[in-house]
Formats: sequence, structure tokens, C-alpha cells
Amino acid sequence: MTAELPDGEMRQVYLDHIAATPLDPQVLETMLPFFRDNFGNPQSLHSAGQEALVALEAARARVARLVGADDSEITFTSSGSEANNFAIKGMAMARRDKGNHLVLSAIEHQSILNSAKSLEKSGFSSSLVSVDKDGFVDPEAVRRAIKKETVLVSVILASSEVGTVEPVAEIARICREVGVPLHTDAVAAVGNIPVDVKALGVDALSLAADQFYGPKGSGALFVKKGVRILPFIDGGIQEGGRRAGTENVAAIVGMGKAAEIAGERLSERQDRMTLLRNRLIDRLPQRVDRAYLTGHRERRLPHHASFCIEFIEGEAMLLNLDMKGVAVSSGSACTSRALKASHVLLAMGIDHALAQGSLVFSLVDKTTAEDIDYLLDVLPPVVDRLRKMSPLYTKFLEESQK
Amino acid sequence: MTAELPDGEMRQVYLDHIAATPLDPQVLETMLPFFRDNFGNPQSLHSAGQEALVALEAARARVARLVGADDSEITFTSSGSEANNFAIKGMAMARRDKGNHLVLSAIEHQSILNSAKSLEKSGFSSSLVSVDKDGFVDPEAVRRAIKKETVLVSVILASSEVGTVEPVAEIARICREVGVPLHTDAVAAVGNIPVDVKALGVDALSLAADQFYGPKGSGALFVKKGVRILPFIDGGIQEGGRRAGTENVAAIVGMGKAAEIAGERLSERQDRMTLLRNRLIDRLPQRVDRAYLTGHRERRLPHHASFCIEFIEGEAMLLNLDMKGVAVSSGSACTSRALKASHVLLAMGIDHALAQGSLVFSLVDKTTAEDIDYLLDVLPPVVDRLRKMSPLYTKFLEESQK
Repeated sequence: MTAELPDGEMRQVYLDHIAATPLDPQVLETMLPFFRDNFGNPQSLHSAGQEALVALEAARARVARLVGADDSEITFTSSGSEANNFAIKGMAMARRDKGNHLVLSAIEHQSILNSAKSLEKSGFSSSLVSVDKDGFVDPEAVRRAIKKETVLVSVILASSEVGTVEPVAEIARICREVGVPLHTDAVAAVGNIPVDVKALGVDALSLAADQFYGPKGSGALFVKKGVRILPFIDGGIQEGGRRAGTENVAAIVGMGKAAEIAGERLSERQDRMTLLRNRLIDRLPQRVDRAYLTGHRERRLPHHASFCIEFIEGEAMLLNLDMKGVAVSSGSACTSRALKASHVLLAMGIDHALAQGSLVFSLVDKTTAEDIDYLLDVLPPVVDRLRKMSPLYTKFLEESQK
Repeated sequence: MTAELPDGEMRQVYLDHIAATPLDPQVLETMLPFFRDNFGNPQSLHSAGQEALVALEAARARVARLVGADDSEITFTSSGSEANNFAIKGMAMARRDKGNHLVLSAIEHQSILNSAKSLEKSGFSSSLVSVDKDGFVDPEAVRRAIKKETVLVSVILASSEVGTVEPVAEIARICREVGVPLHTDAVAAVGNIPVDVKALGVDALSLAADQFYGPKGSGALFVKKGVRILPFIDGGIQEGGRRAGTENVAAIVGMGKAAEIAGERLSERQDRMTLLRNRLIDRLPQRVDRAYLTGHRERRLPHHASFCIEFIEGEAMLLNLDMKGVAVSSGSACTSRALKASHVLLAMGIDHALAQGSLVFSLVDKTTAEDIDYLLDVLPPVVDRLRKMSPLYTKFLEESQK
């Protein structure tokens, strides 16, 4: 039993990487000079500005290196969502003369789906490619969805809700064959699994620092040299005219450092996370009956274990676990308060009632085997208590006793 | 002579407030806990998320108070440019059924002008209202520019390039009379002069923390209750569905603290800045001949003094002053590398050659009278040296000696 720490304080177990990672203290150290002494605007031509510019470009090189891109192919944004808006709207509008159709997977993040919806006002329409029970997009289904009016395909690299890593390289081959650019939302993936834009063969890729121990407020969009994109935030000449607004220097410098560290630690981090994740995936269903893994068993993010637990509301579990010191999510933080069943789970064919019982455990660097065991100790009584209050469960028990 | 400090180091004089203010150390203190311990995502339902949410809403209240708005009327953005894009695109697109015409002043920031340009792809057109020699927009000219298809007017509250404070309250009265919403870009104004959305009577107002000693990467848009606007960054449910993307909690908390401090210090800051600014405005033309103040003498930002210096390139002056430890700008940092004459100066009727000699001095809290005097000492020799290299100046001298 690991429920109590030596000093009697409750154990705090943070298993919500997908909502936000802690900031690496080394990353904060690289940011502080830009809050304290070097407050220059990188666009200013005097020394204070030039120092900020040098730091900005060094950060760009580090981010580029993490994903195998050229420095000039990286545009900084304020979040993964902004990067996704920029990609979808900017690439679609730039190719408007070629057509007005998008192909998206059904499990894209809201910032992709809602950007496409927003493009409807400009005459675009979208086809959603469904996924199988493990959350995989079938590359051939992407091929079939592409029409002669299609100007952009976007398929997520790894889902933050079910962890499944999509066959993006294969989809990219098909897109190249038919001559349609491919964007991938790699926000949940970059820093956690190897991501190389050339190996993937994508034309654009979104990432966010808060998924690899960097600061909130910093993301980036890779756009392959020669691929056309219109600016999303119009205005000044920052980011080569692609993204206006005074650069968030400290956050960008932090993202650069976080990218460097992520690159160095990737392999070790992946191995450690996979072990802990597998411990959770193996043992949770032994402790809680009618708990079903969502997403693929192996081809998933190493720090990610997600389940649907029958006869339970994910939100209620989450709040009860929080009282035990365990922070988890029941899906994307971007829709947490909407209290709707996840569109990702529904697309995978999970029924509406079961989808309500979604729990996502996403591990961070400081997660230990003891943390996992603590979770496995505190979860079953929470599930039992909540199930006792469920009319559906009562009915199920009655019927199974007949 | 104040050129040398006691220890022989060169004096460092930062007079580029409009590009970026230093971060107030008190503001940094309020941000640090959100980099160190509290890294929760405000949309997460567990305690770590809830703590972040509480901090976010406290910051919103502080920003709202600074401009006399209701908390619910403030949407956070990543910069003033994003706030301006959001206002122009979001308000125009929301009223698309009413018409497709915008009225803007000719001296708007690039993020306004280029947003309007971008809207042309969606069938909008814009009329630019010119300004007088002091940079003032004539409210009656705004009235004349409004057509029955006009769905939005945008007039800057104070120009960062020439400092002139526009008669926005009067323009707002006209807009109300004709029933067209008014946005004002108050990025250069908020925190530096009293700004009250009710007194101004505007429907939307942009601001940015890095103009009042808050962090880069944080801005906000005020939108009056009931005024329709579409989201700009589509995606999750953050900011009441108006602005998707994980919130930059630390930066927002910092903006809140900076707003609180700005409110407390506003009157004292304004008085002190005005004195120093007037010292510069009075004395510079005594030291440098053919130096012309741009913008209005009194109805200007208290921390702002701008000039055109004849027979000189602003960029060259800027770089030479930098070698003397003085950081200034020759216009908006957002166009610094474009090396074009400022559209603001041209709109004021300043001729192209003179507009090239633009220098903007913008004071910060730590600026002292000694700093101003140091500038006044180092500037004349810089001007003399540069003029000697100017063929135009040589020609002018020859002609004046005839």
C-alpha cells in the first residue's frame, strides 16, 4: 500500500501530460534572462533587439533539429491550436485557385476540425476519413477521399485521446502520388516519439512546447520549403512575414531548450515511459472489471494509457481521483467542460454510454512505478462507489443475476 | 557632460518603449509560481487545473479593471497583433450579412491594415480616412467614409509612430449614431494614458502587456457585451469558445499584475513622463537644426517624442546611437527591416525624403533627465557626421550659400 507518504501527506500523482507538462527547471533557467535583462524586441535594430533576435534564431535551430527540418521551415506560433489554424486556413486559402476541398481524419483535434468548419464560409467543404476500432486511419481510405478539388489533407500523427500513432508516412506517400499537400498535427507526438519531417514526408507539421516540458504559449508550424501558405496573423514582418506580432522571446527560447533536451532524452524517455505505461495497461483491467483499453496496445504514445470504464462517468472518476491526489483527464482539455462524449471515441465505434467512461492517463518524467501502483490502489474503490450510484449498473447486475 | 559613468562604462539609455518595455520585477514574481509549481492547464477539471483557472480569472478581472470593462468582455490573446486580427476579421465576418465594407484610418497598425487586406479575399473592401499634419483623424471624415455597407470602423487610439492621441470618443459617437461598431487599437495607449472603454464608447479595444511592463506574448481584446464576433483561433472551448489554444497562464497572470500596477501608477507615471518628454521635445530642435517634431505637441502619448531629421536616414541614426548606448527606433518594430518610409508619416503629408529621417524616442519608467541630456549630447555629432555623407545635404548647403 503506497497511499500515504512518510510524513502523512497525500501522494500527489500527476498523470495529465496531455493537458500540460511541468516546465523543466533547466528550461526556465534559459528563459529567465529574457524576463530580467534582455527584454528587447527582436525586430528592433539596436543591440537589445539584436540580442533577442540571436536568441530567437538559436531557438529556431533547436526546434528545427528536433523534427529534422531546416531552420527556415519553422514558424513560431503561440500554441498548437494556432499552428493548426495556421496550417489549415493558410494552406487551404493559398491553394484556393486549385480547389475547395479538404480531407481530414475523423479524429483530428478541434482546432483542425473547427478551422475546416470555419473555411466553409469561404466555400470549402471537407470529407472526414473514419478510423478503425483501434483508432487507425486507413491510408487507402484517405486516397479514396481525395477528389480533384482536394487542396489539403490533414491527419493527426498521434491522438492525445487514445494514443494511437497513425501511419502518416504511408499517407504522405499517397498524397505525394496524387499531388496534394499533407499536414500532420504532431502536437501530442513531438518530443515523445521520434518525429522527422523528412522520414514522414509531410508538407506541414504542428507542434507545441507544453507537450515536451517547455512553456505554455509556444508552438510552431513546420512548412516544407516551397509549400505555399498564407499568413494567419496578418501584420508586421515577423517570422518572415508569415506570423505577425511581437515574438514571445522568453517562451520561444524555452521551447528551443526544451526541444534540445527532448532530443537528447528521447530514447531513454521513450523506454522508461513504455515500461510504466505497460504496467498500467496490464494491471488496470486486473483491478477494475469492464475496463477497456482504447487505442492500439503497442502502436501508441509511450506515455499514454487510455481506457473506457463501463457504467461510469469519466468526469466523476476524474474528480474522485483528484480527491486522492491523482490528476488525470477524461479526454482533451480543450473540450473538458463541454461534457460531451469524445468525437474520437465515437469515431472508433465505441458506443455513447461507454465513451462517457473515458479516462486518459498520461505519464510525465517524474512518474514512478509507485505512482502507477498508487493509482491502481485508489482507482478500484472509486469505481465501486460510483458504480453503486449508477442505475445502469444496478440494472446490469440484476440482469446478470437472472 | 554625462557621457561617461563613474566606472567608465558607457551609459545605457533605453528609449524604445514602443518596441518593448522591460518586465516589472514584481510582475515576474507573480509569474514564477506558474513556471515552477503550478503548471496545470486551466481547462483540466482536477485541482492543478482549477488553480490555474482561478489565477487566469483573477488576471482577467485586473485587465478588465484597467480599461473599465466587465471581466466577461475580455478575451486573452498572444499579442496586440493577434487582438487586432481577431477584432477586424472576427467582427467583419460576424456581420457579413449586413455588408462588406470597412472604414479605417490611414495610420492604423499593419495588423489592422493587413487584416483588412486579407478580408478582400472574402469580398470586403476598405476606405482609408486620411489624417491632418499632426496625425489627427477628423471624426467628420469618418462619418463621410461610412457607407450603408459599412460593418466596422477601426481607428487607432494613439499612434506608436507619432504619439498623437485620436479623438476616439467623438468618432464613437458618430459610429453609434449611424449604428456601425467601432474598434480601437489601444496597444500603445493602455497603461500609459487613462483608457476607459465606457468613456470612449467603443465596441472593441485591443491592448498588449508589453506596452505596460508586462510580458511579451500576452494581449487582450475587449468586446462589448452583445457585440458579435467570430472566433479567430478555432478549436477548443477556451476563452468561452472565442479563442482556442492552451492558455499561456504565466504570461496572462503577468499581464494581470502589470495591469494592476499600471492602474495604480498611471497618474504619477503620466506626469513624470510628460515632463521628461517635454524636455526632449523642447531641447532637441535647439541642438539639431532641421529637426521637426512629428505628431501633436501636447495631445500625444506622455512617453513619446518623435522627429523627422532632414538629410538623414533614420536607420543610420539608430545604429549610430546604438553605438553610444542609446536604443531608439525609427518607427514601428513591426516594419523595422522593411526600410520603407512609414505609411503614418506619409499619410500626415510628410514628404518621402524627410520621412526617411524618422526617429522615435519612447521613454520607460527608469528614464531620467540625465538620460535625456545624454541623448541630447550624443545626437548632434551623430547627425553632423551622417549629414556630411549625404549628397542631398551637400547640395542643400551649396544652394543655401548661393
